Amino acid sequence: MTAPIAIIMGSQSDWDTMRHAADTLEALGVACESRIVSAHRTPDRLFAFAKGAKAAGFKVIIAGAGGAAHLPGMAAALTELPVFGVPVESKTLKGVDSLYSIVQMPAGIPVGTLAIGKAGAINAALLAAAVLALSDPALSTRLAAWRKAQTDAVAERPEDKA
Amino acid sequence: MTAPIAIIMGSQSDWDTMRHAADTLEALGVACESRIVSAHRTPDRLFAFAKGAKAAGFKVIIAGAGGAAHLPGMAAALTELPVFGVPVESKTLKGVDSLYSIVQMPAGIPVGTLAIGKAGAINAALLAAAVLALSDPALSTRLAAWRKAQTDAVAERPEDKA
Amino acid sequence: MTAPIAIIMGSQSDWDTMRHAADTLEALGVACESRIVSAHRTPDRLFAFAKGAKAAGFKVIIAGAGGAAHLPGMAAALTELPVFGVPVESKTLKGVDSLYSIVQMPAGIPVGTLAIGKAGAINAALLAAAVLALSDPALSTRLAAWRKAQTDAVAERPEDKA
Amino acid sequence: MTAPIAIIMGSQSDWDTMRHAADTLEALGVACESRIVSAHRTPDRLFAFAKGAKAAGFKVIIAGAGGAAHLPGMAAALTELPVFGVPVESKTLKGVDSLYSIVQMPAGIPVGTLAIGKAGAINAALLAAAVLALSDPALSTRLAAWRKAQTDAVAERPEDKA
Amino acid sequence: MTAPIAIIMGSQSDWDTMRHAADTLEALGVACESRIVSAHRTPDRLFAFAKGAKAAGFKVIIAGAGGAAHLPGMAAALTELPVFGVPVESKTLKGVDSLYSIVQMPAGIPVGTLAIGKAGAINAALLAAAVLALSDPALSTRLAAWRKAQTDAVAERPEDKA
Amino acid sequence: MTAPIAIIMGSQSDWDTMRHAADTLEALGVACESRIVSAHRTPDRLFAFAKGAKAAGFKVIIAGAGGAAHLPGMAAALTELPVFGVPVESKTLKGVDSLYSIVQMPAGIPVGTLAIGKAGAINAALLAAAVLALSDPALSTRLAAWRKAQTDAVAERPEDKA
Amino acid sequence: MTAPIAIIMGSQSDWDTMRHAADTLEALGVACESRIVSAHRTPDRLFAFAKGAKAAGFKVIIAGAGGAAHLPGMAAALTELPVFGVPVESKTLKGVDSLYSIVQMPAGIPVGTLAIGKAGAINAALLAAAVLALSDPALSTRLAAWRKAQTDAVAERPEDKA
Amino acid sequence: MTAPIAIIMGSQSDWDTMRHAADTLEALGVACESRIVSAHRTPDRLFAFAKGAKAAGFKVIIAGAGGAAHLPGMAAALTELPVFGVPVESKTLKGVDSLYSIVQMPAGIPVGTLAIGKAGAINAALLAAAVLALSDPALSTRLAAWRKAQTDAVAERPEDKA
Repeated sequence: MTAPIAIIMGSQSDWDTMRHAADTLEALGVACESRIVSAHRTPDRLFAFAKGAKAAGFKVIIAGAGGAAHLPGMAAALTELPVFGVPVESKTLKGVDSLYSIVQMPAGIPVGTLAIGKAGAINAALLAAAVLALSDPALSTRLAAWRKAQTDAVAERPEDKA
Repeated sequence: MTAPIAIIMGSQSDWDTMRHAADTLEALGVACESRIVSAHRTPDRLFAFAKGAKAAGFKVIIAGAGGAAHLPGMAAALTELPVFGVPVESKTLKGVDSLYSIVQMPAGIPVGTLAIGKAGAINAALLAAAVLALSDPALSTRLAAWRKAQTDAVAERPEDKA
Repeated sequence: MTAPIAIIMGSQSDWDTMRHAADTLEALGVACESRIVSAHRTPDRLFAFAKGAKAAGFKVIIAGAGGAAHLPGMAAALTELPVFGVPVESKTLKGVDSLYSIVQMPAGIPVGTLAIGKAGAINAALLAAAVLALSDPALSTRLAAWRKAQTDAVAERPEDKA
Repeated sequence: MTAPIAIIMGSQSDWDTMRHAADTLEALGVACESRIVSAHRTPDRLFAFAKGAKAAGFKVIIAGAGGAAHLPGMAAALTELPVFGVPVESKTLKGVDSLYSIVQMPAGIPVGTLAIGKAGAINAALLAAAVLALSDPALSTRLAAWRKAQTDAVAERPEDKA
Repeated sequence: MTAPIAIIMGSQSDWDTMRHAADTLEALGVACESRIVSAHRTPDRLFAFAKGAKAAGFKVIIAGAGGAAHLPGMAAALTELPVFGVPVESKTLKGVDSLYSIVQMPAGIPVGTLAIGKAGAINAALLAAAVLALSDPALSTRLAAWRKAQTDAVAERPEDKA
Repeated sequence: MTAPIAIIMGSQSDWDTMRHAADTLEALGVACESRIVSAHRTPDRLFAFAKGAKAAGFKVIIAGAGGAAHLPGMAAALTELPVFGVPVESKTLKGVDSLYSIVQMPAGIPVGTLAIGKAGAINAALLAAAVLALSDPALSTRLAAWRKAQTDAVAERPEDKA
Repeated sequence: MTAPIAIIMGSQSDWDTMRHAADTLEALGVACESRIVSAHRTPDRLFAFAKGAKAAGFKVIIAGAGGAAHLPGMAAALTELPVFGVPVESKTLKGVDSLYSIVQMPAGIPVGTLAIGKAGAINAALLAAAVLALSDPALSTRLAAWRKAQTDAVAERPEDKA
Repeated sequence: MTAPIAIIMGSQSDWDTMRHAADTLEALGVACESRIVSAHRTPDRLFAFAKGAKAAGFKVIIAGAGGAAHLPGMAAALTELPVFGVPVESKTLKGVDSLYSIVQMPAGIPVGTLAIGKAGAINAALLAAAVLALSDPALSTRLAAWRKAQTDAVAERPEDKA
């Protein structure tokens, strides 16, 4: 059976960021598949993957890319599944280029965009899980527990650390 | 019965933008409720609404706000439902402040952020519909038809218009 | 007796910045309490704290947060006490996101915003002290002495240092 | 008797923005004096005003300026009174220059900065009033009423307006 | 016979900008075809067009798009022909999003990017003509004449115009 | 015989970036000459070089510069050859100044601009090769092979690397 | 006799901005010559003018340009006279591109840069006059009078104007 | 005898940048005095220095500051001497705040602004020397020699350095 979540990224170097999405899904007990799909270097792979994603059984696509980040938007253009985009931090512009390239989609093709970098990758996983939880009560319970644990972990007072 | 989608916005003036979300959902045959919930001027309303949204039967929350736009993120902090954020164009900074305030959420509380302004409002509706369509085949069919009509409406060649 | 100043911050990692506010207040002989209050991970704590701050005897709230920094503005929405905000430097956007999220508050709910990072934390303490000094002549004297010492410490000529 | 609040601005053209501070103070029953004090064109006036502000009986200074906006920071350098700064929208850079020039003060001399433009002017007045209310119970009551009225004025649902 | 230059754009609304490319090519006696090819709404058309562009006889592709402007980069991913990109001015971000989405291509797939808006469209045409002129002496002569006329048209002194 | 491609740069320090253009051209079997031509420190050399470039047999000029990067635009003003510009990353503004100085050319004098830094240098070489390939079938074949190898080198799945 | 100040600008459209420099010089009794010198469209004119400016008797050059504004920096590269640059407001980027292209000159070739737009043009004239006044006591007296009149013209209190 | 050039800076930490101005002047045989004058921490010193600078025999003031950099503009407000400003690189905003605070002066009080950081400090010295050279033929000769040496030092070809 196909995992419900696909994590795609533009290059191997994006994995340092996107692995946090995979780790978060694993912590929530949600299966995912992680693949490298470069919009620019492997456009045929992108077309085949995104056009076939729904039939393959995926429910949600998480796509991360940096710079002129076309992967999330092009995936969204090729599937009706929800696509969540993660702007990977770029070297010179620090991810502002990635963010604008992902979030400023024209009317008609949405990409739900998360924060630049690691926080965005973690949150893409949480958002995808929240979507799946709408029709999966067990996951909903796990997600609620994860959220409660997160709240409980916040200390009352800051602590000096050297 | 509660509508599956709640559209909340920080002020009456955001309606010029957010009505495009409501109109798009209507075109897709998805019911929604539109409410003004100001994070800053009505924080109690925000707490009551967001904490009760899941029990009230909502599935997805679309939240639009401008400037120091705290509504989407605070709603996401108070519910486990998926929250999609629309940065409303602000007067001086043109929505860059709205965008950063919505998209740069810390790890743990996700907001799927759409484009600044009208395009973002339309796309928030399309993304919410795509989420609902995962467990609603009829909506899935309507969404596919909407997408196909959008594709068919693109002319082959540009036309001079005066 | 409650300290007159509360320093709140969104996470333990903000303490590296916000401790400079605490240190400055200590140097001025003003008591303060430092707490972690995450708008996103502990919204109930935020509500309880901010709604109760005035009754608890606080006079001024200093709030520091980074990224989509909602803590200062939400605290200001929940209390009539003066709130001063410190934009903590964020990893990718260097605190521009924090700054916009804090300073661009809509009309009706003010946050007096200081500079990004350590300088802002120190200045939030000085500003809070200046507010308290309006009705505390002894503090006013100490603040004037602190300012004079600062002026006296500026050398006449730059010095080569290796 | 001197009014407790001074509103100073760099030029006549800033009055379109700063009058909203004066109007808000008037609505709260707080007296204020509005003066043009240009840091660049009338530096002697600035020195005389800011150095004498405390002795003259002012409690809080609200300073608005645009572009390379030096007035708030220089006033703060010359008085121990709390200074709140309003970045006036500039023609080409839309107030980003004003904002950076006001908020990015070095450690030692604080300016509590509000939002760019009209919202900032209104909020500077509200923040100044909140400071005065710390030792003025009647004003505290009026401020609370103003806040409550603001909350009550938020409609439940957006309304179509042509 | 196919025209040597293809002008593609993401939507009808881009024509107001891109027509200046067509007009410039016409002035230089270079044939071109102008088509609407939306990366997001008509991805199949994009694939078919870009993959077939070389075989169809095109020599250079000029691609204009705005916002999350994926058209130039995706066209470049699908053809070995030179692609020149024109960032169309967007409503809120004034074309900065378009510019970053087009120019910040990763190593491996180049897009020669011109200025935002009308100037960029004109210059894309001039650059495409310069490329064709490398192997077309008659065009080279016409281009030189165009450049000389441009130089000659610059007046010596500014003139008051009401 | 003159090499078909000239790589010029504003200073020795730009070579760390621009050598990637030279290396890429070498990999494609395209000869190039690399020269330091400073628009600001050696304007006469710039004039002599750019005015003589066409007669010297060059076909395409690649120009890299940082900060107030005038070299690509001034070269383009002095030759009818296609000029491709590479914004070199600058110390404080990270190449945004370089990018704006190169890409925002006025109508009449085009510079095809690539990404900031190393990726831009590589892509300038690829774009120049694509231009030469229009009339050089052997190079066209090599370029296609280079592109295919690039595509083949993209792994299917990300790999954990320590 | 040559006027001591040359005002050069990139195009006729810059005159709307640069005429304020000419008007200010006239008010100060300083002669100037205004010329259109396009770095991009008339590079030979630029070379001839800038190289000959000192011998022609000019003392200071004021140069205004917009977008990729190369005129001030290239003039500075070609003369030892002081060059003051005025960033003309550009259509899409509001003069940020002009500013960066003028002010971010590399070490070795200075351009003293003024504010974007009309204020910058006026101030370039005042700065040029201040330079001439160093060896022209009569001008120094006129400049002092101009400054005093400016100070005297600042009203004490803002005035409501409809 | 007073040196003709004063170099002032807001703090000891600015000396790392501003010493390059002093070193450059020394290389040109121009005497200068370097002083710390903080607009915010020592406003009286600023007033005394700037008001007395002309009478003290200074001809040009070079002022460097970072963040909300008010020193150059306030010095210019207090003297009729030419003032050149150097935006010192700031920690979070990389000197963009410094640049805007210095360059965006209102009409009436000019500051000739140089590049952010070390290049700006060097160029402020060169520009000041160019001003003095207008009435000092010996300095003019030295400046010309310095410029020629700079030109001669530019190598023809880049060199690989490890």
